[in-house]
Amino acid sequence: MQELIDYIKEYGTVLPHDVLKVDAFLNHQVNAQLMKHVGEEFAHRFAGEKIDHVWTVESSGIAPALMTALALDVLMIFARKHQSLTLKHDMYTAKAYSYTKQTTNNISISKKYVTPGENVLLIDDFMANGQAVNVMLEIAKTAGVHVVGVGIVIEKSFQPGGKKLREQGLRVESLAKIKSLADGKVSFVEE
Amino acid sequence: MQELIDYIKEYGTVLPHDVLKVDAFLNHQVNAQLMKHVGEEFAHRFAGEKIDHVWTVESSGIAPALMTALALDVLMIFARKHQSLTLKHDMYTAKAYSYTKQTTNNISISKKYVTPGENVLLIDDFMANGQAVNVMLEIAKTAGVHVVGVGIVIEKSFQPGGKKLREQGLRVESLAKIKSLADGKVSFVEE
Repeated sequence: MQELIDYIKEYGTVLPHDVLKVDAFLNHQVNAQLMKHVGEEFAHRFAGEKIDHVWTVESSGIAPALMTALALDVLMIFARKHQSLTLKHDMYTAKAYSYTKQTTNNISISKKYVTPGENVLLIDDFMANGQAVNVMLEIAKTAGVHVVGVGIVIEKSFQPGGKKLREQGLRVESLAKIKSLADGKVSFVEE
Repeated sequence: MQELIDYIKEYGTVLPHDVLKVDAFLNHQVNAQLMKHVGEEFAHRFAGEKIDHVWTVESSGIAPALMTALALDVLMIFARKHQSLTLKHDMYTAKAYSYTKQTTNNISISKKYVTPGENVLLIDDFMANGQAVNVMLEIAKTAGVHVVGVGIVIEKSFQPGGKKLREQGLRVESLAKIKSLADGKVSFVEE
């Protein structure tokens, strides 16, 4: 998606340890017009699929997921992160390890809003190792929900998350694919 | 806002200790069409004001704030919650105490995206004691930013947050005002 790539080129900054900072328009300050176009692009790419729900994980996934749900005219669910040890029987819960923060969180979705057999599209802002998506897949499996595909705003293609998901037969659509962040320079996968 | 009040009547549930659960359309499962109308309503109510930025606090504020920013055609910032003790010099930070979780969080906004003298509209999903809004006000004061007003999706008018803000001379626009949740029944302030 050229508009997104232009934003990354203009406002993205590369930090040590392969961190791409996009807090100018995606995950701290947010450009709502760009998010609207991102949502429309995901809706366009998955136009052939029956989709009942859009799922994401708080917080940075909410903006692109909301705009995707708006474009598809379906409801969105953002899974909640929490550290509580007590599992609630009315929630589907799975564990996620954060490499950045070195903490383990529980990620939960209320059973009330999940229908076995329904079709769900997973959306997230970033994919590196695929942690957040894997947690949503685990919940989907437990809940008996069919995952239509995965929409990622920015994929770090040099990390293994996307490749592993595609090897499982999942359809992964990434709007910008980063080939490398070496030497502080962003280079994109040519398509 | 009648559409919102209808949603609360149809999908809201009252839990003990005056908790109004609206996770069917606002803060877990999210109705994107409703959020778009919420954003348009805030933009309409604050139409006479010059607004440079919409601010909110993650996570539940993001959906209404994003749609407000879309309608106003300005950038949105969601302040980050974190527990780290080390303050960063490139962030404005204030402390927030959560009554529900009984924890203290730091709430931060990057200085990079704040311009002294600019006009900011604060948006949040709920107001009870006004914690989240007070934290944003504290950051705005430190940063020398002018707060044009506060937009709240659901205000619990029987708790003191909104009254205190209005007494300070702040303009607070709430799209649904809850008068009482007594006996498990939602009643609204008549306007």
